[in-house]
Amino acid sequence: MRFTFVTLFPELLKGYFEASILGRAIERGSFAVDFCNPRAFTEDKFNRVDAPMVSGGAGMLMTPQPLYDTLQHILDEDPEAHIVFPLPVGKPFVQNDAKRHAKQYRHIVYVCGRYEGIDERVIERFADECLSIGDYVLTGGELAAAVMCDATARHIEGVLGNSDSLHEESFESTLLEAPAFTKPVTFRGSAVVSEFLKGNHSKISDLKKQMALCKTQYFRPEIIKKAEA
Amino acid sequence: MRFTFVTLFPELLKGYFEASILGRAIERGSFAVDFCNPRAFTEDKFNRVDAPMVSGGAGMLMTPQPLYDTLQHILDEDPEAHIVFPLPVGKPFVQNDAKRHAKQYRHIVYVCGRYEGIDERVIERFADECLSIGDYVLTGGELAAAVMCDATARHIEGVLGNSDSLHEESFESTLLEAPAFTKPVTFRGSAVVSEFLKGNHSKISDLKKQMALCKTQYFRPEIIKKAEA
Repeated sequence: MRFTFVTLFPELLKGYFEASILGRAIERGSFAVDFCNPRAFTEDKFNRVDAPMVSGGAGMLMTPQPLYDTLQHILDEDPEAHIVFPLPVGKPFVQNDAKRHAKQYRHIVYVCGRYEGIDERVIERFADECLSIGDYVLTGGELAAAVMCDATARHIEGVLGNSDSLHEESFESTLLEAPAFTKPVTFRGSAVVSEFLKGNHSKISDLKKQMALCKTQYFRPEIIKKAEA
Repeated sequence: MRFTFVTLFPELLKGYFEASILGRAIERGSFAVDFCNPRAFTEDKFNRVDAPMVSGGAGMLMTPQPLYDTLQHILDEDPEAHIVFPLPVGKPFVQNDAKRHAKQYRHIVYVCGRYEGIDERVIERFADECLSIGDYVLTGGELAAAVMCDATARHIEGVLGNSDSLHEESFESTLLEAPAFTKPVTFRGSAVVSEFLKGNHSKISDLKKQMALCKTQYFRPEIIKKAEA
């Protein structure tokens, strides 16, 4: 599996894929990440990749030609590449999209906008999906692309050391994850939930379900309402 | 304004703050970013910062002592630091939280979990807020922290070149942003919406509102339902 980031600023993200779990998985060959800079494709004699909006309004927009040619080049090399535009106006990206992407595609391309965004004609021509990671605005699409890539890569065989890790986490059931504790049993006056220490796994599991329910009710009551509906 | 990332892997994020808009704003002194590694605070003789969960279950958890001492050290130096835990079980972080954080706090500390997460006692003791950037699971809290920091930093005076940019974007009104176009007017057979070229600003503004409505209806019908309610 391969992820390509189309970005004017590859240096923003490179470090993220060079250490920890994902860095090691890339070294082992579980998946690959590459970067493609549309500036290399611009036909503008001053190397520009942005221009004012034609309708007026503040700020600059990424011009269509460099992105168009970058994406055409990627599709010429790999016609099955799946092109994703991380956009605040997209459909919300959720855990099931991460799993679906890991399962269905061999090559995902993220097109990262900068400035005020991307000329709409590029999106219309190339987008297989427009996805939003949340209801807030970022300085560019790079972090949103990294978030989708990280959430997706976790589901590729061999990336997490222990695939059991995938089963007990938030959003895998309808509830959020229960609190978790490690040693020491008492730390600066604060003790671990005592049932956790007794080794009765069905009791622990019941208790965790209860705590997960409380946590979900407190932070995300709408998840419980949806599950009941 | 200052942002501190408490992370075992500062190298994952450093590059993100060294270029483009945020890198330049940091150089100009509009805000500052620093990193604090809990590994430097561990009292474990093998330098460990993680341990198995006491209730059983797959994977390792961050132990309380290194994080506890890191956060206590930060609070000793700056008692007004506002401590945020990016967690999948948190309250959803949205655009208004970004604005609120930029307005209300001088120093935000993001505590980034790794492995299966953080011992609950640290969260109980130190969290001013637990926030989630979306309904998906990441390999660690670093990207979530970077997303919150990016969305917040945009609202600090002097970070964006043109503060008008803040007014027309998605989530600033109840609707998503309208499509935008730049030159050339016709690119590979695809033309800009012709009204955009005629310079009648009230007509352009009406048209943009209509297109924003269509886009919101298509991608996020629940936003319109909420506005009507």
